[in-house]
Parts: sequence; structure tokens; C-alpha cells
Amino acid sequence: MSLKLYYDALSQPSRALLIFLKTTNIPFTGCVVNIGKGEHLTEQYKNEVSPFQKVPVIIHGDFHLTESVGILRYLCREFSVPDHFYPKDSKLQARVDEYLEWQHNNIRAGCSMYFRNKWLMPKITGEPSNEKTLAKYKCLMVDSIDTFERCWLQSNAFIAGDKISAADIWAACELEQPRMAGYDPAEGRPILSRWLSNVRAELNPYYEEAHKFLNKIVQLESKVVNAKL
Amino acid sequence: MSLKLYYDALSQPSRALLIFLKTTNIPFTGCVVNIGKGEHLTEQYKNEVSPFQKVPVIIHGDFHLTESVGILRYLCREFSVPDHFYPKDSKLQARVDEYLEWQHNNIRAGCSMYFRNKWLMPKITGEPSNEKTLAKYKCLMVDSIDTFERCWLQSNAFIAGDKISAADIWAACELEQPRMAGYDPAEGRPILSRWLSNVRAELNPYYEEAHKFLNKIVQLESKVVNAKL
Repeated sequence: MSLKLYYDALSQPSRALLIFLKTTNIPFTGCVVNIGKGEHLTEQYKNEVSPFQKVPVIIHGDFHLTESVGILRYLCREFSVPDHFYPKDSKLQARVDEYLEWQHNNIRAGCSMYFRNKWLMPKITGEPSNEKTLAKYKCLMVDSIDTFERCWLQSNAFIAGDKISAADIWAACELEQPRMAGYDPAEGRPILSRWLSNVRAELNPYYEEAHKFLNKIVQLESKVVNAKL
Repeated sequence: MSLKLYYDALSQPSRALLIFLKTTNIPFTGCVVNIGKGEHLTEQYKNEVSPFQKVPVIIHGDFHLTESVGILRYLCREFSVPDHFYPKDSKLQARVDEYLEWQHNNIRAGCSMYFRNKWLMPKITGEPSNEKTLAKYKCLMVDSIDTFERCWLQSNAFIAGDKISAADIWAACELEQPRMAGYDPAEGRPILSRWLSNVRAELNPYYEEAHKFLNKIVQLESKVVNAKL
């Protein structure tokens, strides 16, 4: 039964699924959806891929599924996946789930809204960011990253224990996003920095591959900032 | 092994878990945490219940778990629960998961932020709501409820098929919240209205019991509005 992944490398949960599928050797066909060009907003995408008109989406046989965390759980049931990514042990699995639910309105909301308002929207509209709105989102992002470091990274090498899990993949992909907008979550946070290095090392070469385009933008933006100084 | 639920009846995911535990006959002890009085913000709560200082939380034996959706999945593994609430069939379970992940930044974000800005914050600060902010949140809420009706309620009696699941419980509890702020999601939406009546009927008497305090506030607020007219 064929598995297709519709994704955009600039979408955090798209990258998380891409890395997860490659690391776990699940065979799939990748279908790039260029969000910047509005390819998810066509009637064809709505009718043939997803009524929600977002990425990522999988089509497994004729089963369409959206929402990366739900997709992850489905893939763990349908394919053979190393246990540590989504443990069968009830309490360990609960810890991974707890993180994946917590992140929506914390790390994900904070980092993505900051990225959106600082980097994406000015590119689309040509208007500068509203400074007050931006300050609010920066505060939300910094608070959530501080809480992440304090509550999730203190006692173990990885979020749910001494082995990497899906929670680490999803967290890392969100934390890479604001780097494009000039904010590096690892800066001044040695615990988070060490954890992120471990996550990258565990998931390479797929992690770097999935972040290739993002890292290119980070480099270009940093050149623009330096040229202005 | 004892199971404790820390909850506040004014919190949507608290009510969802309360209804789920009672409907499925899982034995537990309820521990009321009065959010309005800041009982979740004490050092004792932080150290003994949850470092995140939110509700709901469960303590099962000595295992502490936050995040209602993660708790729900854990309870379905640890206790005997009728299958339709969280189906073992992979595709049906994926559909319930898909809704539970989707709702965070749609129904939940929209309804709770509108409720917070229209009703809760003015009560706490004594200041009226900022009209511009409120209009933005109302728009987000209305959009998400419209999408909910269009994408989740068209083809079946319940969200994931012809039987009630956890997705319906979580959705209904979020949709009750803005009624306290004078907005009834069922008004002018016949499909949503019929679905909500079915959900209430399936889950009574526990649904009404969990919403008793909320319904009292709705009544009081409606008297205040009528007195002003």
C-alpha cells in the first residue's frame, strides 16, 4: 500500500515527519507543496489532498490524514518503528504524548507566531512588523522556551528519558524555526544547546537534510543583518 | 492503585476528563482546584501536583500526568473503556487523534481566547475588554467553529463516525465555554446544534452535572444583559 507525504520544508511539523519517516526507514513518496506559492490553497488540493488546506498530510492507500502528531501515532501502528521513538510502555508513551500535547500552545505557538510576524508576514505584505505585536509574541516564545528547558530537559538526556523519542524530533523542528527570524533559542541556554546537539547527532544525516533550506535562509538573513551593521 | 483528578469545573479539558471518567465508570477521587482563587499558583501545587501549574492533572499511584488529551490516552490503556470512545481500529483511532490534535489551535484557541478576553479578564482586572483584540478573537472563534461544522460534522452523526468518541466530548466542552461570554455556537448552526444535542444526550447525567456551574453563570449573565436592555 503506497504512502505519500505532502510537505513543505519550511513547515516545522512537515520536517518532523520527514525526519521521522527517513530515520525509521518507512518507505514513502514525498510530494512537495510550496506554501509560499499558495499551492495548498487550490481547489484541487482541497478536493484531492485535504479539506483543511494545510501541510503535512499523508495518503496511505486511500486514507487521508492530517495533523502531524496524529499521523505519527498512526505510522507507529501501521509500520515497524524502533520502540524508543514512541514507546509501548504505558507511562513512557504517556510522557511522549504529554509533551506532544503541551507543545501546541507553548513551543509551537510561541516560535511559529514570532517567525510569522517577524519574518514571513513582512515578506508577504511588504509592510514592517507591528512592534507591539512582535514584542508580545517574542515574550510568549521566550517564556515557552524557558519553560521547555526548565520542565522538560532537566532530568534526562532526552525529553522522555535516556533515549530519543518523537517528542524530541517535534520539539527540535519547532525550535529551529525562529532562527530564520534572527532568534536562536540555543543562545544563552546551555542545557537546551546540549540537548539540541544530541538530537541533531541522533537524527543525522536526515536532520541536516530536512533543515538544508532553513539553514540557507538563516545564512542569508545573517548576511543581510551584517551588511546593515 | 488510586487515581486522583485535579480539576476546575470552569476549565474545558477538566470537564471533558470529568465526564469521560464518570461515563466510563473509572473509579477516581476528584480534587477541586479553584483557578479563580489562584490555588494552582501555590508552591505546594507546583511541587506536589504539577510543575506546569495548570489543570487538569491526574496522579495515578505516584505517576503525575498533565495535558488532558495525553491523560485520556493513558486512561484508555490503563482501564477498561468502551471501544467507541477511543477505537482500537487504527484508522478510526487516527480520526479521533486527528480531531484532538486539530482542536488545539482551532476550536480551543478560538473559544477560550474569546471567553478569556470578553468575560474572564474584565472580571479579574476590572478593565473593559479591548474592542480590537476582542474582534480579532471573535473572528478566530467564528472561523474555527464554521470550519468545525463544515469539515467535522458533515458526513456522520459524530466526529469520527456513527458512535460517540472522546473527540466529541472534548469538542463539546470547548464549545460550551463562550456561552458564558454571551456567544452560543449552536445559534444559527443547525448541524452543530443537532450534534451537540446528541452529545449531551449520550453523556447525561454526567454532562449536565459537569456543566452545572457553567450553566448557572450563563443564566446570571443573561439576566444582567436583559436588565441592561
